[in-house]
Amino acid sequence: MVVRVMATGVFDLLHPGHVFFLTEARKLGDELVVVVARDQTARRLKRDPYTPENIRREMVEALKPVDRAVLGSTTDIYETVVRERPSIIALGHDQIWNEAEVEQECARRGVPLKVVRIRAYPHDELATRRIIERILERARPPGEPRA
Amino acid sequence: MVVRVMATGVFDLLHPGHVFFLTEARKLGDELVVVVARDQTARRLKRDPYTPENIRREMVEALKPVDRAVLGSTTDIYETVVRERPSIIALGHDQIWNEAEVEQECARRGVPLKVVRIRAYPHDELATRRIIERILERARPPGEPRA
Repeated sequence: MVVRVMATGVFDLLHPGHVFFLTEARKLGDELVVVVARDQTARRLKRDPYTPENIRREMVEALKPVDRAVLGSTTDIYETVVRERPSIIALGHDQIWNEAEVEQECARRGVPLKVVRIRAYPHDELATRRIIERILERARPPGEPRA
Repeated sequence: MVVRVMATGVFDLLHPGHVFFLTEARKLGDELVVVVARDQTARRLKRDPYTPENIRREMVEALKPVDRAVLGSTTDIYETVVRERPSIIALGHDQIWNEAEVEQECARRGVPLKVVRIRAYPHDELATRRIIERILERARPPGEPRA
């Protein structure tokens, strides 16, 4: 039986922390399906993404550890779990869900599975923020008159 | 004989145009080696990258079409060609080098090869610029006092 692992996230402005998370998630089974958060879900839970959802999905699917990337549901986060029926859900070290609660909710919907927490990437935890800061720092090109 | 293809670029803030270019380049042979421009080279030819060279290299190597990504030379762009000895160099539609000139320079250094121009990605040619614009637009969070 193929052990399907599911991981989820926004994946805006990809950095090595994302690749580490997905590589570790992939190692838990035979196949990795990634659920990419919809723009409106990301906006609600975190912040408006800089990259639109279809592009974020495409870029995640282009990464080596990922077998398939799908857009999440806009209404019920468990909708995709019921459709994809993974055996394992991998959670990032900073993802807020509680392991036991997620396992209970999935079992209640007829998808018994194990939730595994992936450890933090040893470097670059603030990678996205640093990239954004560099963009902002250089926003005023040299020679442009100050307002 | 393994047909080695080489592609080169800065690959700052990855977007689907990069993936398209590398996927098309990979199709030209059996193996794709990507030369990622050093920070100082990018600065000289284009602009200072937002993502440092080691991170750009790591992210390019995480993409499915890429077998290996290496950092370029800081001095002679042909140094890496001589070391890697590709059979084909893939050029992006907007890369400024002239096909015949590159072929001549490589042959002169003992690496006869063919230069192939990859066509433009049908969408998202300004993808990086658009992502940067979105970051700048939202730089002032709602509620933050205007200076």
